[in-house]
Amino acid sequence: MTTTLNDIRQAAERIKSYAHRTPILTNQSLNEKVDAQVFLKCENLQKVGAFKFRGACNAVYSLTDEEAARGVCTHSSGNHAQALALAAKMRGIPAYIVMPNNAPSVKKNAVAGYGGQITFCEPTLEARESTLERIRLETGATVVHPYNDERVIAGQGTAALELLEDVPDLDVIIAPVGGGGLLSGTVIAATELKKGIRVIAGEPEMADDAFRSMQAGKIIPSVNPKTIADGLLTSLGSLTFPIVQQRVEQIVTVSEAGIIETMKYVWERAKIIIEPSSAVAIGVLWEKKIDLRGLKVGVIISGGNVDLEKLPWQS
Amino acid sequence: MTTTLNDIRQAAERIKSYAHRTPILTNQSLNEKVDAQVFLKCENLQKVGAFKFRGACNAVYSLTDEEAARGVCTHSSGNHAQALALAAKMRGIPAYIVMPNNAPSVKKNAVAGYGGQITFCEPTLEARESTLERIRLETGATVVHPYNDERVIAGQGTAALELLEDVPDLDVIIAPVGGGGLLSGTVIAATELKKGIRVIAGEPEMADDAFRSMQAGKIIPSVNPKTIADGLLTSLGSLTFPIVQQRVEQIVTVSEAGIIETMKYVWERAKIIIEPSSAVAIGVLWEKKIDLRGLKVGVIISGGNVDLEKLPWQS
Repeated sequence: MTTTLNDIRQAAERIKSYAHRTPILTNQSLNEKVDAQVFLKCENLQKVGAFKFRGACNAVYSLTDEEAARGVCTHSSGNHAQALALAAKMRGIPAYIVMPNNAPSVKKNAVAGYGGQITFCEPTLEARESTLERIRLETGATVVHPYNDERVIAGQGTAALELLEDVPDLDVIIAPVGGGGLLSGTVIAATELKKGIRVIAGEPEMADDAFRSMQAGKIIPSVNPKTIADGLLTSLGSLTFPIVQQRVEQIVTVSEAGIIETMKYVWERAKIIIEPSSAVAIGVLWEKKIDLRGLKVGVIISGGNVDLEKLPWQS
Repeated sequence: MTTTLNDIRQAAERIKSYAHRTPILTNQSLNEKVDAQVFLKCENLQKVGAFKFRGACNAVYSLTDEEAARGVCTHSSGNHAQALALAAKMRGIPAYIVMPNNAPSVKKNAVAGYGGQITFCEPTLEARESTLERIRLETGATVVHPYNDERVIAGQGTAALELLEDVPDLDVIIAPVGGGGLLSGTVIAATELKKGIRVIAGEPEMADDAFRSMQAGKIIPSVNPKTIADGLLTSLGSLTFPIVQQRVEQIVTVSEAGIIETMKYVWERAKIIIEPSSAVAIGVLWEKKIDLRGLKVGVIISGGNVDLEKLPWQS
């Protein structure tokens, strides 16, 4: 059983009173620069500043009242943690968030600001998983994985659903790939809605495990990747890998310099704050490793959570 | 004769194929912070990153073919220069832009990038005006003043027109005031469309000439103001002052610290790049000198042109 277009439509119905229908922006300078007609689906303008709210919200509102009463939990240092905390707050249930003790303060404050109950642990996967398991046993909360969860995948797919409702004649959709939740939801929505549409993923060259997994035909785990695109450090999961493998046309890697250049260009010209992970998706167009000239290209701008005190173009 | 709602409606019709209909964003964190329901009309997402494109575009497309063929000219170091250059480029006519030789390189590059023909002069009002007059005589180009021009005022009013079309039940609209073009267009559109709506202006405390002009009942020129809100340095004009005086409820001044705090908060939470002048408008809510609690407040976000290498919260 895998996520279907119908699941995505149901998710859209479920979250529509809670999530923003984000705007789609166009920018003439960007179009000229990359030689394509680009439509930016602005999930940076989504609640909590990231697409992650869609999946978390769908998961939280999928629970029965009885399940919901015991709360939700996850381990995440990123946007998923904020998203789950906010969705839980909206439903009036607890969210238990396990975070590594070296998480940036801006992220800790954001999770706490949305009412998430944070438990810190050592910054290792083992510590995170064992801490989460302990909390799950103690509270009975439902674990909501950041991407390897069908409710989450269906929720993330609602961004592409809206994008194609608003711009039905797209030739291509590009999304970034980390764990593959957004990419999986996107490719299901896109290919089910529109025969022949191409779905391409952008991935940092320095964290190219999804690219290598596609080559190898099996999940190649990401080992200690070093990229500015800190939303894309994770590896594909058991649910997302088969979807990506079967449906995504290709994964294109983007250099660190390309990520930073693209990010700065979009801030300067489009006047929106995008995080490096979003620049990876536009970076596929920017670096022109593949030929998308003249096409109508939708890009899922994944988020806008950036530490404004430390910008990558400043020394 | 003054600008009417009908002029603004005609302007909207004239510019609609060229200008973006900008999105209106809401942000729950901001609402809670300022204790009001805020609707941000995002002219930072307008072409050239500022509302100025509306007025310039209306002026350029108001010209007869014969007038247009000789081009347009202005003196400006700011967003109006870029706006006029782009509007002229769209119509296929020359734009002659007089800029002070100390204008930031980002602004020079932007004007040149839109095809504007720049003439540099000494950074004094006398030099700017005499250089513009020389160019006007040499070329026969039409001068388009940044704000003291009815075509420009009508164009700027189209932002409020769209805002009220999309959110008809606003109680208040806030716009920043510099020369008063945006404020004049906004207050005409708003008060003609909706009886009893309140229109309030935000102005930097450190450049409070419009505030003082309202008190004095005559234009008090701005003398060498020092504020980070570099879009609001100019004084009201002979066309804008009477409109502001008769129709604007009040002008509220905002401190420099308030401008910077508001700007950073909006970048962080709303994920849009706003320039200090826009933060002045939201700053009216932020500093709470007047009581707008519980109201539905539209704010015209004037623009997003900021030098990303020099952010005010960085040392």
